[in-house]
Amino acid sequence: MERGRHWQQRFAVEEPEIAFRVWPEEGDPLEVEYLVAWQPPEDPFQRYPNLRVVFSIGAGVDQFDLASFPGHVRLVRMLDPGILQGMREYATLAVLALHRDLPHYMAAQREARWQALPSLPAQRRRVGIMGLGNLGAAVAETLGNLGFMVSGWSRSRREIRAVECFAGDEELGAFLANTDILVCLLPLTEATRGILCRDVFSQLSRGARLLNIGRGAHLNETDLLAALDDGQLSAAMLDVLEKEPPSDDHPFWRHPRILLTPHVAAATQVDTGCDVLLDNLRRYRAGLPMYGEVNVSAGY
Amino acid sequence: MERGRHWQQRFAVEEPEIAFRVWPEEGDPLEVEYLVAWQPPEDPFQRYPNLRVVFSIGAGVDQFDLASFPGHVRLVRMLDPGILQGMREYATLAVLALHRDLPHYMAAQREARWQALPSLPAQRRRVGIMGLGNLGAAVAETLGNLGFMVSGWSRSRREIRAVECFAGDEELGAFLANTDILVCLLPLTEATRGILCRDVFSQLSRGARLLNIGRGAHLNETDLLAALDDGQLSAAMLDVLEKEPPSDDHPFWRHPRILLTPHVAAATQVDTGCDVLLDNLRRYRAGLPMYGEVNVSAGY
Repeated sequence: MERGRHWQQRFAVEEPEIAFRVWPEEGDPLEVEYLVAWQPPEDPFQRYPNLRVVFSIGAGVDQFDLASFPGHVRLVRMLDPGILQGMREYATLAVLALHRDLPHYMAAQREARWQALPSLPAQRRRVGIMGLGNLGAAVAETLGNLGFMVSGWSRSRREIRAVECFAGDEELGAFLANTDILVCLLPLTEATRGILCRDVFSQLSRGARLLNIGRGAHLNETDLLAALDDGQLSAAMLDVLEKEPPSDDHPFWRHPRILLTPHVAAATQVDTGCDVLLDNLRRYRAGLPMYGEVNVSAGY
Repeated sequence: MERGRHWQQRFAVEEPEIAFRVWPEEGDPLEVEYLVAWQPPEDPFQRYPNLRVVFSIGAGVDQFDLASFPGHVRLVRMLDPGILQGMREYATLAVLALHRDLPHYMAAQREARWQALPSLPAQRRRVGIMGLGNLGAAVAETLGNLGFMVSGWSRSRREIRAVECFAGDEELGAFLANTDILVCLLPLTEATRGILCRDVFSQLSRGARLLNIGRGAHLNETDLLAALDDGQLSAAMLDVLEKEPPSDDHPFWRHPRILLTPHVAAATQVDTGCDVLLDNLRRYRAGLPMYGEVNVSAGY
């Protein structure tokens, strides 16, 4: 709401031709051509028959019912440089935390144990990133600069400097066998739901570590607990969960080898997010391609 | 001991002219010209009257009694690239952890609270590094690459690209006033013992965060607790303590705004540390300056 008001003020100055209305002040629904939302109102396409473009406020679009999108309505996800920076920071923090055994040290601190573990330099630690879109590619670059051996996996083939890139189901096994710290930055689609499961964990190096900064529904939580119990995984850091907030008795809260943060890895920044929206609207109105347009049938 | 044996084997192959003896096998004390040690034996200069160079196994030399050094004995600290890499990793991890409120989130996890805090991008966070030797300079560069605003302070003036450098007592106040996250990477000398104290904390921005990866004796522990209590500091991460391990009832173990790790930021690596030692010995024997030679009267 606060963000909406701020963007409304900027539109009034920078793009006065476009009336920017902040929910629930929608004005005449027939006039609504663009929708900027995290969660859209119910039945948006019936409610706004002249809707042409839906802009997600977030980096993902899994909160939308993509099957309901009419063919003529375009969908754009938010490629905010503020999200990119937040994700680079958080992923770097989390991969370093897993690399340097912070879950162990935090548990040891609570028990007043001063116990150093042997450590490896980043040059001997293999980080595998699932999802090589703009966020995954930026994270890969940052981790490579710190010395990690970085590989990546995506549905369609990517090329990123100094990153060994794997693609498709047929190369997933080779990617996983090559990974000590697995980072999930995938979009959530029917193909990726529950992908972080026992079968995937079992193909990682023994004692591997997991970072989920995609969506909670990427992770099979039961399988994670089992993999931590039997030592196939040694630690995990999670910023997203299937149900947020989790129930008070969720086993992750007090698990000694799980670090949990409350969905704070990256958020759209007020200023840069509005820059991106203004730029995309101008591009759309000029007939140019928009940044972050989603292939609705692929789901990302 | 294990490291000693490993280095002995390498010397036998790569520098067979130099007899490498592993304590307690010292051979004829009159033959000892070089001493490689973390803690030297008692009265080393009496015991080994022909001693010419003491090589510290660690990055610091504060474990030596510098006042006891005869003028003709040279002292060299360990400039191991393995230490440099470890320190870059740990400092990056810790500054990001403080920047992104990890102490808060770890305490919230233990209490099953899902509570996000507002966050700033690194571009709006000012990191101030005390100590701009080879470690401080490398840490400054790495943090700058992540987007942080980095400044540094040292006794004598340094110049580092993209780092605002302050020098000497007269500029300490300006440096501190400019700092949201204070990083201590100073050598421990009589001039720096206890430097992390109430007076210094009070000159930082309100709610600043502290990282000590220097020596435990840099920190006045009582003053840290008071600054956390009154909100002048909001969190601290400490890898070193005055007494290691701390007593079971030390207040840092369970403090909700202190992250504690057991002196693991960086350690001399067996292979690269031996490379550095061999190189310096060859340089010494060729009459060339050694890397990391300490000014014994300055203490670093």
